[in-house]
Amino acid sequence: MSEDARFGLSRTVTLPGPLRLDGGVLLSPVDIAYETYGTLAPDGGNAILVCHALTGDHHLASNHPRTGKPGWWTRMVGPSKPIDTDKYLVICANVLGSCLGSSGPATINPATGKPWAMAFPVITIRDMVRAQAMLLDHLGIARLFAVVGGSMGGMQALSWAATFPERVAAAVVIASAARHSAQNIAFHEVGRQAIMADHRWRGGDYYHDSDPPASGLAVARMAAHITYLSEAGLTAKFGRRLQARDAKTFGFDADFQVESYLRHQGLSFVDRFDANSYLYITRALDYFDLAEEHGGTLANAFRGDTRFCLVSFDTDWLYPTSESRTIVHALNAAGAPASFVELSSPFGHDAFLLESPELDRVIGGFLQNGTPR
Amino acid sequence: MSEDARFGLSRTVTLPGPLRLDGGVLLSPVDIAYETYGTLAPDGGNAILVCHALTGDHHLASNHPRTGKPGWWTRMVGPSKPIDTDKYLVICANVLGSCLGSSGPATINPATGKPWAMAFPVITIRDMVRAQAMLLDHLGIARLFAVVGGSMGGMQALSWAATFPERVAAAVVIASAARHSAQNIAFHEVGRQAIMADHRWRGGDYYHDSDPPASGLAVARMAAHITYLSEAGLTAKFGRRLQARDAKTFGFDADFQVESYLRHQGLSFVDRFDANSYLYITRALDYFDLAEEHGGTLANAFRGDTRFCLVSFDTDWLYPTSESRTIVHALNAAGAPASFVELSSPFGHDAFLLESPELDRVIGGFLQNGTPR
Repeated sequence: MSEDARFGLSRTVTLPGPLRLDGGVLLSPVDIAYETYGTLAPDGGNAILVCHALTGDHHLASNHPRTGKPGWWTRMVGPSKPIDTDKYLVICANVLGSCLGSSGPATINPATGKPWAMAFPVITIRDMVRAQAMLLDHLGIARLFAVVGGSMGGMQALSWAATFPERVAAAVVIASAARHSAQNIAFHEVGRQAIMADHRWRGGDYYHDSDPPASGLAVARMAAHITYLSEAGLTAKFGRRLQARDAKTFGFDADFQVESYLRHQGLSFVDRFDANSYLYITRALDYFDLAEEHGGTLANAFRGDTRFCLVSFDTDWLYPTSESRTIVHALNAAGAPASFVELSSPFGHDAFLLESPELDRVIGGFLQNGTPR
Repeated sequence: MSEDARFGLSRTVTLPGPLRLDGGVLLSPVDIAYETYGTLAPDGGNAILVCHALTGDHHLASNHPRTGKPGWWTRMVGPSKPIDTDKYLVICANVLGSCLGSSGPATINPATGKPWAMAFPVITIRDMVRAQAMLLDHLGIARLFAVVGGSMGGMQALSWAATFPERVAAAVVIASAARHSAQNIAFHEVGRQAIMADHRWRGGDYYHDSDPPASGLAVARMAAHITYLSEAGLTAKFGRRLQARDAKTFGFDADFQVESYLRHQGLSFVDRFDANSYLYITRALDYFDLAEEHGGTLANAFRGDTRFCLVSFDTDWLYPTSESRTIVHALNAAGAPASFVELSSPFGHDAFLLESPELDRVIGGFLQNGTPR
């Protein structure tokens, strides 16, 4: 493990598998792109797995090798940060189904020598977690000091505790939910239909030329992006302010700043994300229902001795506080140790990625309390 | 006016105009499709104009001539109904920019002999109201006993009172707002981009063949439809229930009932609505800001002696109660008589179109109180 001690070591491992998926398919091989930060303690007891959100990647706290941009959670992860890489070995892996290094529709199907495209098997959040468990086996990490994630990352943290309770001492679940609501599914279905409506999608077979369904993917991203922000946040940031020319054009250009902003969100997204991966990962999210996986009773998902920390944000309407409360009630019913805090933020769901000293304190404190050393 | 006395008389008038639009263009001629119900009183004082919402039409209370379906507000309008066609002459006109009989992008541009398409001038809510005023002139109606509308219809009612205060005795504004918020604009921009991303949109020039941008329009409708329903309403109606086969397919068919429902909403919409009209009317909504039209102070919009009735629904997150309160505060500041009630409903924005005895009572009572006879 000595190599992993370097800060932000990025690599991809190809594991032979097979990985048995919830859909019944055996996937083999399984590529997993991941980064590690810090050093594994001699007793192996200081590993923290951070799980990323829908469109995230494993470049957690180091600069992105291609864009040069800082990792997506540098605020939280690093030396003397709340997830302190001087104390913990921190691991972040690109999720199964994604397009940023791990196996997904854009990777090669060994049976054909061509990209899987829509022949890639439909995956679940639990399948993502199983792939991560294979990675930990490969890294020789038997048990996690903690698994930490926001949004879809929080669902993976929940699924880790439910699927491998003996391997998770603590789980931090931020701005997340134990299931996707009808409204969540509806927004994702809009995104999927936008992608499939793009004539360049071609049933997912678009990898052979450089003409992906970028317009549809941009629309999908725009719709989703609205759900990441609060109405109050949008009003504060943009309101009805017009673009620089400061007059309505009586046309269909982006007159309002919020239009221009959304268009930019859509356009910049298609440069970094694969449309088919967007289909697969939104499907995994929609399928997620931890209670259903446990006989319809959420408390049954929590039978280990994992301790939990839950955080929600008061303006998050994608995964509102009520969803976290549902989890807390189930944890209480299961007798699992759980702390819960609703933080105040104007930024809606996106708050978990933004500057938040309170969130830093909550996570830092929770991890600190579990540190036996 | 004797002909108009028949119930649900539907016709289209071509007015020479010109109609001076907010964008500076003179539109001529102006087609207006409308229906009337009831009989104009000898003193002309019993006319009620009902204004429809984004995708509505003038088939208010009679069966649609093509589909045979009941009018969209038969619940509210008819003999002995809250808007009582035995007492009032009720008028409903298809809005300017629409595709259901009134002038819009699908109608013929007299300069070219071809459909206007995107050469149709961008219009505003106030332009819709001006066209309606031309219709009333044509019908010989000097002053409205009331103007009534929900959603975009409520905006027209507000704009009527602000633009022609001497012609409006009373205004009923249901589930509406005095301006479009940043989030409202954002959702509309998603819809517009979905339409424009459809390769069959072709810059709006798709009228010559039978291949309109149906996929893009369906996606636009799906995204908008989510905003018409509450999260709780979606959960109650669909939750995470699967389709009849009652098992996940691990594929991309509509596994969940909510997906199937949304897809149906999108697909059925494209049969009855024109994509370019959707662009134009959403633009008119986004441009709507009654305060801005009156020096930045909403109270300045209300200088007549119109009396107002405002109704909001507690689960409406498209035009939430706070938007109605903003209007009420402005009316109070202007010294205008105003009543306001927030009704409780699980159905979100759509509640104004659904069975609601409370809404019936509020509207019936408000109109009754104004009846001098």
